[in-house]
Amino acid sequence: MYSITASRRVRRTPFTAGVEAAGVKGYTVYNHMLLPTRFGHDFVDDYHHLKRHVQVWDVSCERQVSIKGPDTARLMTMLSPRDLSRMADDQCYYIPLIDRDGGMLNDPVAVRHDANHYWLSLADGDFLQYALGVADALGLDVTIDEPEVSPLAVQGPKADDLMARVFGDAVREIKFFRYKKLVFEGRPLIVARSGWSKQGGFEIYLDDPQLGMPLWNRLFAAGEDLHVRAGCPNLIERVEGGLLSFGNDMTRENTPYEAGLTRFVNSSADYLGKAGLAARPARKSIRAIAIDGEIPPCDRLWHVYAGGARVGQVTSAAYSPDFGVNAAIGMVARSHWDAGSKIEVETQDGMRNAVVQDKFWI
Amino acid sequence: MYSITASRRVRRTPFTAGVEAAGVKGYTVYNHMLLPTRFGHDFVDDYHHLKRHVQVWDVSCERQVSIKGPDTARLMTMLSPRDLSRMADDQCYYIPLIDRDGGMLNDPVAVRHDANHYWLSLADGDFLQYALGVADALGLDVTIDEPEVSPLAVQGPKADDLMARVFGDAVREIKFFRYKKLVFEGRPLIVARSGWSKQGGFEIYLDDPQLGMPLWNRLFAAGEDLHVRAGCPNLIERVEGGLLSFGNDMTRENTPYEAGLTRFVNSSADYLGKAGLAARPARKSIRAIAIDGEIPPCDRLWHVYAGGARVGQVTSAAYSPDFGVNAAIGMVARSHWDAGSKIEVETQDGMRNAVVQDKFWI
Repeated sequence: MYSITASRRVRRTPFTAGVEAAGVKGYTVYNHMLLPTRFGHDFVDDYHHLKRHVQVWDVSCERQVSIKGPDTARLMTMLSPRDLSRMADDQCYYIPLIDRDGGMLNDPVAVRHDANHYWLSLADGDFLQYALGVADALGLDVTIDEPEVSPLAVQGPKADDLMARVFGDAVREIKFFRYKKLVFEGRPLIVARSGWSKQGGFEIYLDDPQLGMPLWNRLFAAGEDLHVRAGCPNLIERVEGGLLSFGNDMTRENTPYEAGLTRFVNSSADYLGKAGLAARPARKSIRAIAIDGEIPPCDRLWHVYAGGARVGQVTSAAYSPDFGVNAAIGMVARSHWDAGSKIEVETQDGMRNAVVQDKFWI
Repeated sequence: MYSITASRRVRRTPFTAGVEAAGVKGYTVYNHMLLPTRFGHDFVDDYHHLKRHVQVWDVSCERQVSIKGPDTARLMTMLSPRDLSRMADDQCYYIPLIDRDGGMLNDPVAVRHDANHYWLSLADGDFLQYALGVADALGLDVTIDEPEVSPLAVQGPKADDLMARVFGDAVREIKFFRYKKLVFEGRPLIVARSGWSKQGGFEIYLDDPQLGMPLWNRLFAAGEDLHVRAGCPNLIERVEGGLLSFGNDMTRENTPYEAGLTRFVNSSADYLGKAGLAARPARKSIRAIAIDGEIPPCDRLWHVYAGGARVGQVTSAAYSPDFGVNAAIGMVARSHWDAGSKIEVETQDGMRNAVVQDKFWI
């Protein structure tokens, strides 16, 4: 482990002061911004806490691409392989975004304000530049920018209770991937039932940096008896649950089909990647994989073999205490993607036996 | 300082094993890749060494956008405000890249292979997505991707001597921002006289990861008596020299005029940002600034004031031992951009007096 050097290019967030006071142990960089990776003495400590109590996560790095203006619907339809025609104004949609060849460019949560205004809550990568390139080339009447919006996630089984104490019981009525505008210190904030864990919870889209620490502090003051703690997306929990990380588990080399996102490809419109995607049936796909033995940190791609031939890769892995298994996310060729297929995974510490699973551990 | 968590998304490079063996002390993340920030016991130690001897820098994070195919010239002309019409096939051009409104999107070094093939050696940011957005929207006949190319820089006053021992005396004849293809272990590599320091040197565009450690090791073996050391872009040296960092010193909010890059805006073609840029004369501009007193690390934007009013910002700063000054890069409003203007800089440790300079410290 090596220390990280901060700069304006590797941005602090409205919550960084709180994150540091809470004793953050490690960071990564995501969308040119600091993202905590660990608070407890190890990932396991954070993992158990997340599954039992409630955590507050600084996910400001889920930067928004704001698309606004008369040509918004036209542009969104060009960009998205997912049908947006029935999306409501209080709704969030997970959408794969692809290029002309069907290669994935990002997989944000789209937040719809109205037909002429969306936010795309990004995974790691400057998708803003792709949207801007399309709009500039065609002279579309849209404004595309990154607003001062910093999401704060509240995740874990006690998230409803904690959020109700700060935002009122209205939070309990928010449906999955829907949002309400709820007031904090006089300011209406978008509060969605969403987040990058399988433990349930909310994301608060803070659009006034001055309210960052007041919101942080209020949540901690209100949640003492709920054992609220500072947290962050947990490697073990998200691998168990099969939550994909763009840039890790799939890249522009992969289609949404390969990434297991076929159900989000249903637009009948003539989006930019339509023909390219149709020409690329999946020959490999994301799979849950259980790996034998001891495994080192998965800080690079691990090749997967069967009978000496390469049949895929593992890109995220961690030992799951609750399931007693080395859980992994990988991409496996059709020849070996059926559950029960025996494969070998080449880690930096040597080869390990592994078995393809029928589903993730939830 | 906090530790950094590696993953496939925060990529290792072909030289990471060497960087780690050389005792790297800190990293940042740049184009989704590890970039070392310090090797010596502090930045000052690295700084003195760079100015006296020779260093080998892992700048793999200067990722290439490869643009190739029949419509390359058309696309490059749309993207670049700099006139490329007289660029030779062995030439490198520093080019600001802008959007429709004249806002900066990146400032790469363009490496010309031939009229139908360029690499853009990027600053931090996925400009690939902008180029791709334009090409996809217009259906241009180009292939845009990120090839497996990892630049290794050799910088410092003894760079010519070290490079000649590995690549032969031909390196001495390479002119500034020109390149030759020179052979290493049977493979011709692009070697350019360029790099992100004012101390002179080269960048080797390694396009075979397997040759990464052999090249690294050969340079160190050949340079022992030249006191070769592992290094990296040095904060102090680059601030002294006024080398701008995209994302730190200028962003999409700024035009090339504001960034002091007016001399690189000379294309007579109808590039995408032409009208937008023409409508935005510079009301502020990059300046060298000398700050009094002691300053903390500039890990965030510092506001600049004069007579109580905001007149700019400082975005990079460091104490220069050779010039005995707190050297800084900032952007200052027209009212105070003349040399000698007295201003105040608000650091996280309090307000400091400062003076606008007529030039950087070279």
